[in-house]
Parts: sequence; C-alpha cells; structure tokens
Amino acid sequence: MAKTAITPTRADDYPEWFQQVIRAADLAENSDVRGCMVIKPWGWAIWENIQQGLDGLFKATGHENAYFPLFIPLSFLQKEADHVEGFAKECAVVTHHRLVPNAEGKLVPDPASQLEEPLIVRPTSETIIGSTYARWVQSYRDLPILINQWANVVRWEMRTRLFLRTAEFLWQEGHTAHATAEEAQEETMKMLGVYADFAENWMAMPVIQGEKTAGERFPGAVATYAIEAMMQDRKALQSGTSHFLGQNFSKAQEIKFQDANGKVEFAWTTSWGVSTRLIGGLIMTHSDDDGLVLPPRLAPKQIVLLPIYRSDEEKTPVMEYVQSLKKELEAQEYAGGKVRVMVDDRDMRGGEKNWYHVKRGVPLRAEIGPKDIAKNGVFLARRDTGEKAGVGRAELVAGIGQRLTEIQNNLFQRALKMREDNTRTVDTLDDFLAYFSPKNEEKPEIHGGFALCHYSEGPDLEEFLKKHKVTIRCIPLGGEAAKGKCFLTGRESARRAVFAKAY
Amino acid sequence: MAKTAITPTRADDYPEWFQQVIRAADLAENSDVRGCMVIKPWGWAIWENIQQGLDGLFKATGHENAYFPLFIPLSFLQKEADHVEGFAKECAVVTHHRLVPNAEGKLVPDPASQLEEPLIVRPTSETIIGSTYARWVQSYRDLPILINQWANVVRWEMRTRLFLRTAEFLWQEGHTAHATAEEAQEETMKMLGVYADFAENWMAMPVIQGEKTAGERFPGAVATYAIEAMMQDRKALQSGTSHFLGQNFSKAQEIKFQDANGKVEFAWTTSWGVSTRLIGGLIMTHSDDDGLVLPPRLAPKQIVLLPIYRSDEEKTPVMEYVQSLKKELEAQEYAGGKVRVMVDDRDMRGGEKNWYHVKRGVPLRAEIGPKDIAKNGVFLARRDTGEKAGVGRAELVAGIGQRLTEIQNNLFQRALKMREDNTRTVDTLDDFLAYFSPKNEEKPEIHGGFALCHYSEGPDLEEFLKKHKVTIRCIPLGGEAAKGKCFLTGRESARRAVFAKAY
Repeated sequence: MAKTAITPTRADDYPEWFQQVIRAADLAENSDVRGCMVIKPWGWAIWENIQQGLDGLFKATGHENAYFPLFIPLSFLQKEADHVEGFAKECAVVTHHRLVPNAEGKLVPDPASQLEEPLIVRPTSETIIGSTYARWVQSYRDLPILINQWANVVRWEMRTRLFLRTAEFLWQEGHTAHATAEEAQEETMKMLGVYADFAENWMAMPVIQGEKTAGERFPGAVATYAIEAMMQDRKALQSGTSHFLGQNFSKAQEIKFQDANGKVEFAWTTSWGVSTRLIGGLIMTHSDDDGLVLPPRLAPKQIVLLPIYRSDEEKTPVMEYVQSLKKELEAQEYAGGKVRVMVDDRDMRGGEKNWYHVKRGVPLRAEIGPKDIAKNGVFLARRDTGEKAGVGRAELVAGIGQRLTEIQNNLFQRALKMREDNTRTVDTLDDFLAYFSPKNEEKPEIHGGFALCHYSEGPDLEEFLKKHKVTIRCIPLGGEAAKGKCFLTGRESARRAVFAKAY
Repeated sequence: MAKTAITPTRADDYPEWFQQVIRAADLAENSDVRGCMVIKPWGWAIWENIQQGLDGLFKATGHENAYFPLFIPLSFLQKEADHVEGFAKECAVVTHHRLVPNAEGKLVPDPASQLEEPLIVRPTSETIIGSTYARWVQSYRDLPILINQWANVVRWEMRTRLFLRTAEFLWQEGHTAHATAEEAQEETMKMLGVYADFAENWMAMPVIQGEKTAGERFPGAVATYAIEAMMQDRKALQSGTSHFLGQNFSKAQEIKFQDANGKVEFAWTTSWGVSTRLIGGLIMTHSDDDGLVLPPRLAPKQIVLLPIYRSDEEKTPVMEYVQSLKKELEAQEYAGGKVRVMVDDRDMRGGEKNWYHVKRGVPLRAEIGPKDIAKNGVFLARRDTGEKAGVGRAELVAGIGQRLTEIQNNLFQRALKMREDNTRTVDTLDDFLAYFSPKNEEKPEIHGGFALCHYSEGPDLEEFLKKHKVTIRCIPLGGEAAKGKCFLTGRESARRAVFAKAY
C-alpha cells in the first residue's frame, strides 16, 4: 500500500481526512474562543484571492462596496417575523459596555453599564442595511441601490467545523433595492450566475444552480436560490445563496419611494452571499490523500522553485539560475495577472521540503539542481496528476500559462466527472433507500451521491428525509418540467429536485 | 464674500465644517447603532485604496496577513494588568448566545444561554493573538512571526465623531514576535517608518515621528511611537502607532521558545496599527471650504470627464469623444497603476454636476462640449488650486501622470508649510499660555499650533496640561538632545517634546 502524506485517507475517514488536510496545509486552526477559527497566512492568502476574484465580478456587474455596523439593535431583528425566528436562536448578544472588578478582584460586566437595548452581533445584515436604505431612498431616482459589503458575521453554532461551520465567519453580503419586482428578480438571478461563474471558473468546482424548496428558504425571503457542489464523499455543499426578498424587508424597514407618478411604493430587495465556507468546498472538491490541491487561479503561489545543492560551490550557480528563472516566470501572464512564483531556499532536507509544498497544494513544483542546469531545465512535478518530468527552461517559461490552464481545466473536469458518475434519477422508495444507505457500516459517508427525484412537499416527506438524513438541495434551473410521481407519497410532481446528504 | 459649497467654513466653525464635508462628499454617516458609522461607497473606495497601499508596504517588509477571532475571553484581557486597565472601561461585552420572547412577546436574552465566561468584542488583539503565538512558537527557529490582520474593533467611546472616534472602527493591527529585544525594537521603528512613508507619500500628509511619553503609552507597552499630523485647525491628530511591547505580553500569554543553546526564553513582541481615522486626517489636512480635496494617489477617481451638450445631435459626437478620451487616459500610468477615470453623463444641470465632483474631491475635472471638441481639447479644472484652463487632448493624455504628481506634491507642500508656519519653540509659561489661548472667544479651536518645549514629566505638569487641554504629542525622533529647563517647573530637561491640542 502506498504511503500517503495525510492520515487517515479519504476512504478511511473522510471527516478526519478533511481536518488533517487543513492542518497539514497550515490553513487554519481552532482558536481559544469557542467555535471561532484562526485563519493562518496560507489560508488567508487563498481567501484574499477569492475576495479579489469575486470583488472584480461584483464591480463588473455595477456594484459598489460599503460598510455597515457590526451590531444590530435587538428590536431591528424582531421587525421581520420569519427572520427573527431564523436567527434569534443562535446569536451573540452584547448586554454591557464596561467591566469592573468584583469583590474578589475578578472582572465582571458592570451592572451600571447594562445597555437599555441589547445589541446582536450581526448574523446577517438585512435589517441594519435596510434601515439605512430607508433613509437613502425617497424617489425612484434613488434606485436601484447596488451595494456589497465584506464583513465578519457571527452565528452561535453548537457544532462547528473549520471553514464549514464556525461561530464567526467571513463573507460578503450583497444588498440591493429596486423599483420593481422584475428588476429585483433579475438581480437575484444575475448574482446566482456570478457565483456559479466564480465557482466553476475560479474554483474549478462544478455547481448546480437551483431554487430552494420552501422549507430551505432564507428566513424572510420570498425565494432562495443556491449553488450546490458535490464533495468527494458525495455529500452536497451549499456554496452560495441569492435571495429574492420581495417587499418583506422593505416593509419591515420602511424602504419606500415615490414612483414616476408620485405614488408611494415599497422597494423590492435582494441579498446574496458567499463565505469562507468556499474554502471548505475548495478543499473537499480537489484535495487528495497527499493533502491540499489548489486550482491555479486561486493558489497564492502557482509554482515553487526548489533549489538543490550539496555545497557552497554548487549553491551559487544554482541560486543564480533559480532567481533569474523566477524573474522570467513572473513576467508571464496567466488568467489576467502575472504568474505567482516562490523560491523555497530554506535549509531543510529536500524530501521534506518537497512534501511541504505537496501538502500545501502548490500546482507546480520545479526542482533545480546542477544536473538540471546542465540540461538548461528543471524537474517539474504537477500536483493534480502527480506527473513528473524534465522540462527545458524555454519551454517551461513560454508554456507556463498554458500549463496552469491545463491544470485548472483538469481539476474542473475531474470534479465534474465525479459528480456525473454519482448522480442519477431515482424513482422508487426502495431505490431511494438503497441509494442513500451507507455502503459500509463503518463508513457512513459513502453512499450514492445526488439523486434526481420527483417529490411532493409536505410533513410526510419532511419527516422521512429527516429520519434518513437526506435533504432536498434544490430544484435545478432549466430542468424540464416533466411530470411524475413523488417517490415517497406517489403524489403528482411537476419536476425533479436534487436530493443529497449535505454539510 | 465668495459663496462656498460648504457651510459653515473652516474659519467659522471647524468641527461643524468637518461634518459637513463628510456629508457633502458622501463619505459616511451615523448609523442607527450608537457610535457606529456607515461608510458609504465613496468613503469605502478611499479606504480600499488606503488598504491596498499599506498592504503592499507590509508585504514588501516581509509581513503576511492572517485572521484571528472577533471575541476575546474576559480572562485573557485580565492577564496583563496595564492592558486590562486601559480597555475594561470601554468594551462591548457578550454575555448570552440566544434570545427568547418574554411574557409580552418581546425578545430578551435567554437566561439559560448565559455564557460561563463573558466575551469581549476585541478592542485590540494582543491577548488573543499572543495566546495563538504561544502555541506556534517552540524554538527560535519559529521566530520571527511577522503577521498583520485587517479587522474591525470596538471601543465603547462615549463621545463619537465620524472617522475620528467611533465605537466600531476598521483598522489593521500588526503583531510580531522576535527572539531578541533588538530585533523587536528594530521592527517597531521599521513599521513607524512605513506609516510615515504612507502618510507623507500616499496621503500627502506631513507627520512628525516620535516617541510617546510614559503617560501616553499604549496600555501594556514598554514604548509607544507615533506619527503626529497637524490639522488645519492646528490641532494634532495621532495617525498611527507602533509599540515595543518588550516581554510584557509574552509573559502574560506565555510565548516561550528554546534559544540556540536550549535555554527557554520569553519572546519579544511588537504591535502597530492605523485605522479608518486616517480618513479623518485626510479630510482635515487637505479639504477646503468647497469640500473634500483628495490626494491623487488615494482618489477613487483621479479625473472625471463631464460631457456637455444641448441636443441629441450634439450628444453623439461629444459622447464619442469622451469615451475615446477615457480609454486613452486609462491607458496612462500614474504612481504604479493605471489612471482612474470616470465619465459622469447623468442627466443633471452642468453646474450642479460640477459641484458634485468638487465636493467629492476629484483631483481633475474635464468639461467637454462641442467647442472644446472643435479645439480638440478639454476645459480642465484642478481641485487643489482651483486653476481652470483649456488643455489640448494630446497634452492632457501625455501629461496626466505628471499633472497628478504635481497635485500630489502641491498638497504635501501646502500642508507642510501650514505645519511649519504654526510650529515654534516655546520656553516660558507666559508664552505657553499665550500660544495656546484661543485667538477668539467664539472660535476656541484657533490657537498657536505645535509648540516645541522643554519639559519634566510629573503630576504638576500633567495637571497643568489637563487644565489647559494641551497634550504632549511626542518626543520627535532625531531631535538633538539639547538640555534646557521645563517651561512650567523649571526642572532640568534633556530634550524638547511637541505640545499641542489634539483630537
């Protein structure tokens, strides 16, 4: 059996493998604060690239960034009934603004500093942003408002996992207000498309775009749309959502405007967000039993140069070669930017150093020693396929963009094949149960994958799904409206939805 | 008397002028949450440019970004005695993690969800980051750690002012750990230098670098250094600080390492930060009675093109000219990037539109109508000097970088002259009192400016300064150590410090 850098392997224990990949790649760790993570420099650099990519797409679709308060007055949350229901159960509540020593000299919240109205650390900002828009909007001429914010949010989750579910997480939240329902609906779909574009073309993560069923809607939304991706354990990861909020929040926050005829109307609003959860998706889509695999577009470094020498005499020409190669590579373009190159000349055993970059997912590693220089080339390894071969210097430099493009495409195609191989239609209850049954008692996570089923929403279906830990992920967009019968109840069904176990 | 865009003028009411500039430029506003601001898109775009500029300087000096929790366990704060003293009086305390409806259906913190240990929303992160470093550092080989974080922090200020003092603000905080005191001290000074470089060369805001006196040190620091700038009301604005923390925090958080000889030592740490307060400094350094004046390096848009036409027949050629000019200008370089150009073709009266961009501080405005096109040029206005003149198209395009450089330099020189004209040595008590007395009963903010005085720290000086609302800003670096006598007590003094009224 081949030795792998990560123990356990995916097949042995997928959830633990995920934690160990994060650890081996130095991406993040749990902090001293319950449920909050520390994002380490390599993990943060990936997030910076995600931010930069998305930010460009948001700006290209006419959005501006702004910033709104971290705190939300408790009464704001209560203005939208479904919304408060969704978030009151898991929020950080600020009640005091000063500490004083008690009789034993231990600090405690000063009773005299109790707030008249407690503040909630934002779990999402529809209410506080809505109340701001209410001040900004008077006339139809003030619409649309197309704003995004990059921020931290807090939801008091009881069971947390790095990147996938943490009490504090980082995200962007777009909040827009429009004069008509049509325009708001169009915005909702446009941003869903932006997320799908980003997931597929930057993250190399294929996604299904679809609408959420009523039970899975964002609290307060009229309709919620999501992008859903399949992880390597065949479970679904909801990776981004876009909500058509109708007039629910504009009525709660009084976002009103005079239309062209002087009639006062409530605005139509949307919100949409993706978070540091994307990094969890990135890890689980591409990584293998040797650790992280990064798509080149998001890799903080796309190629690492590893100088090899045994003496000071060897070191000088090797380092000269490496540094001049670095410059040449950095002058090349890939995906709209310069190629990101690093040199690792730390004093460390070659094998150890090599594995260090394998585990961190650097797309290309080039070893460069006296023999390679004699041939005017490098010994190049591809992280995604494990291929290794000597490559001439000129070919490496001229072809670097093309090589990174191939890796990016390969990762996407591989993930797409994985999803397609593990997606099928399921029409009967027996089939459904068999499909979602663990294939092995000890590895409950290995099951069928995605099932496209006819369904009929209702308490019976809900209870059944809860029991079997399966969820309706979404009703795919553009799916044909072929009629059928619900696999559970036999009731009429207008279309199929995607069913899956999920994160 | 000339009509100004901002009422009141600086001379009439400086503090109110500041608020009105912010309002007229659409930079920010107070939110529904006490002391928290909404940063609007134009203000946020300036902050993005500040972030980008500083981030580049941090990375160029070997720092990486990471992210640490928003919350700090109360017990962490208490580990460093001076630190807790400094921050316990003004912090947001999280005590519960769930809301429930009370008997009247009103939401209240659920008593059953009370936290065992309250959490503080970070006012600064020395303690939580220090406790993380304690896990990361075992050996001298793990040092130095050179990390920066971009984050929001909360200090429960009672009197808040947009950008200058808000309960929540945005900042970066660098936190580094080193094996020796010398190395930590060197880092402290290096980052002070980075701040001075950024203030002077990006913000065009001259600063004095110096050390803070004991009474003005960061809570828990061994030494605090700051950059101090003079605003147009001659008051000082502390614009950035860099702290040498010695081993105070490493002892409190147990950041220990084995040195090369196997001996266990405490690490030496530093921290350094600048915040959205910089935007306050930017406004008060350059703006005038017509509103915001932006230094080109930080302006979201460096030139605005204003098409002028009276009919649809005029519109077509004007818009074609404007769009092709935009492309040509955008291909030009300035300060390491492409020139940032906007076209404002909103349907709005020309004068109103012009003032809109004056008030928002765009460095150059180019009006373009049929007459200008006939001459193949534009009518160009400079925001900083108010100069207006016809400029040929070729000259405008080829010279845009140079013109922006001139504006940037002019702003710096103007601000430097302002500071020099209002700084002098003061040696006697009478002189001191006269210098800091308001020149006009109704305008208490107009006084002398910066005074360089000999001094001797002690309760008498402290009380005197408090009474007269003057502070010691810093002991300037590189000042000669000429002996003298304290202007108040007559005691021996080793060097002069900068005294000023301050924000």
